[in-house]
This record gives sequence, structure tokens and C-alpha cells, in this order.
Amino acid sequence: MTDTNFATAQDAQKAFYEAIQSANLAQMMAVWSTDEDIICIHPGGVRHCGPAEVHESWRQIFMHGPQLIFKIVNSKSHQARMLSIHSVCEQMTHRAGAHPPASAIATNVFARTDHGWKMLLHHASPIPSRPLQEQQEPTVLH
Amino acid sequence: MTDTNFATAQDAQKAFYEAIQSANLAQMMAVWSTDEDIICIHPGGVRHCGPAEVHESWRQIFMHGPQLIFKIVNSKSHQARMLSIHSVCEQMTHRAGAHPPASAIATNVFARTDHGWKMLLHHASPIPSRPLQEQQEPTVLH
Repeated sequence: MTDTNFATAQDAQKAFYEAIQSANLAQMMAVWSTDEDIICIHPGGVRHCGPAEVHESWRQIFMHGPQLIFKIVNSKSHQARMLSIHSVCEQMTHRAGAHPPASAIATNVFARTDHGWKMLLHHASPIPSRPLQEQQEPTVLH
Repeated sequence: MTDTNFATAQDAQKAFYEAIQSANLAQMMAVWSTDEDIICIHPGGVRHCGPAEVHESWRQIFMHGPQLIFKIVNSKSHQARMLSIHSVCEQMTHRAGAHPPASAIATNVFARTDHGWKMLLHHASPIPSRPLQEQQEPTVLH
């Protein structure tokens, strides 16, 4: 595994997506803070809180090996001294071509720790299938 | 309108949900930072970036007047000097009883500005209808 004391939040985010692509559970958990309040929400899923729930969610996702190839586009970020917020669009294609490409929006939050920048929160949600430019009215609950 | 120079991120978040409940567009926009990179993702929706898109998304949601009553539960937060991250569960009931209650998970990010704490990001996604304790396998894209 490469060094996991990430010097920047951007480095930690890069390792996060590499860990998904390679279905590497150890690398994935090395990206995360050990804080009890870490939070992970997969697209369409519930909220997983704390290292044990977050670990178990990724274990289940990775159990069939590498499945997805990620392209990260339209990144926006807010960087402060101790926290860094990233909003990205995830374009996912399935390695086996078994499923059509899908897109999600993710909010990724990183904190500066004694061991470099670590992930505190990952919140992803599917992007509606209609292209952005065709969507005039939001499909919303509120 | 009450004072919008919010002394804490928690005050700003309270005003945010009050603005939704009252469908008050001016109060809603007073909660937000004027930063060009503000981001708002409604449940099941696309990403709205910048004050103009965020304003238009709320204008459409509020055009039929107050619709929803919110209860915020299971809040978790990470507070730093300049940024504050809140993860909350939103329980929504429709005033007219026209729709069943719905729940969403929201990530809310606030920044300390010269005008108090202001919202930088709101990312909400629907919670799957199965209760958390019955859901053993995450329903995920990744």
C-alpha cells in the first residue's frame, strides 16, 4: 500500500477512488479517520456511522472484487485549515459492461489529523438519468 | 425576518429548516453564503451551483406555499474554526396529508463569514423506505 499519511485532502480523495476501483478494503479504511462519528452514505443507501459500520458497508461492496471504473469531474472544493469539503460528480462504468454507465454526486469531507488528511464523511446520491441541461424542474421532496 | 447574522452554525441550520417550512425564499437565501461555489442538491435531484441556481431551485419548491413540516433527528456534527459540517436525518410530513411521510439524509456545511455563519452546501438524499434495522445489504451503485 502507498503511504496513507496524506499531505492534502486531494491526495486522500484520490486514494479513496483508487481504493474503490481496486476493491481494496485496507486502502479504503486507511483513507478514513478513526473518529467514531465518521459517516458514509452510498448512492440510494442509508447512513453508516462509525468505523465498524463504514468498514462493513465497503466489505460488502468489495466482496466481488473490482467492479467499477471512476471518472471524477466538475470538482468544487472549500478548503479551511482543518477541514476540506469537496463536491464532485462521479462517472462510473462497469468493468464487465454488465450495467450501463451511471453517475452520482458526492460530497466528501476531509479533516487534518495527526496522520495527515483523513475522510470524515462521504455522501453520494445518484444523478437523475435525464441530462442536466434538459432538467428544468427539480425532482424533489422539498 | 429575524437577524440573519447567525452566531452559530446551529442557528443557521435552524433558520434553514424554518425557511423551508414557511416557504420563505428571502429567509432561505439569507441563510446561504453569497459565495459563487455554494451547492444545493435536493433529494433525488441534480446539483445546483451558485446563488442564481440555488435561488431558482428554492423558488420552484416554494411556489405553492408551505408544504412540509420537518423534524430533524440523529444529528452529528464536526465543528472547526471556519467550517461546520452537520449530518442530519430529516423526517418530513406533508401539511395536507396528501403524501406519506418521507425521510432524507442531509449533509449541511456552514462557513463562518463576516456576516455570521452561512450555508455553503446542502446535500440531501432520500432514505430507502425499508427501516434501517431490516436493511442488511446496502442498495448501492458502488
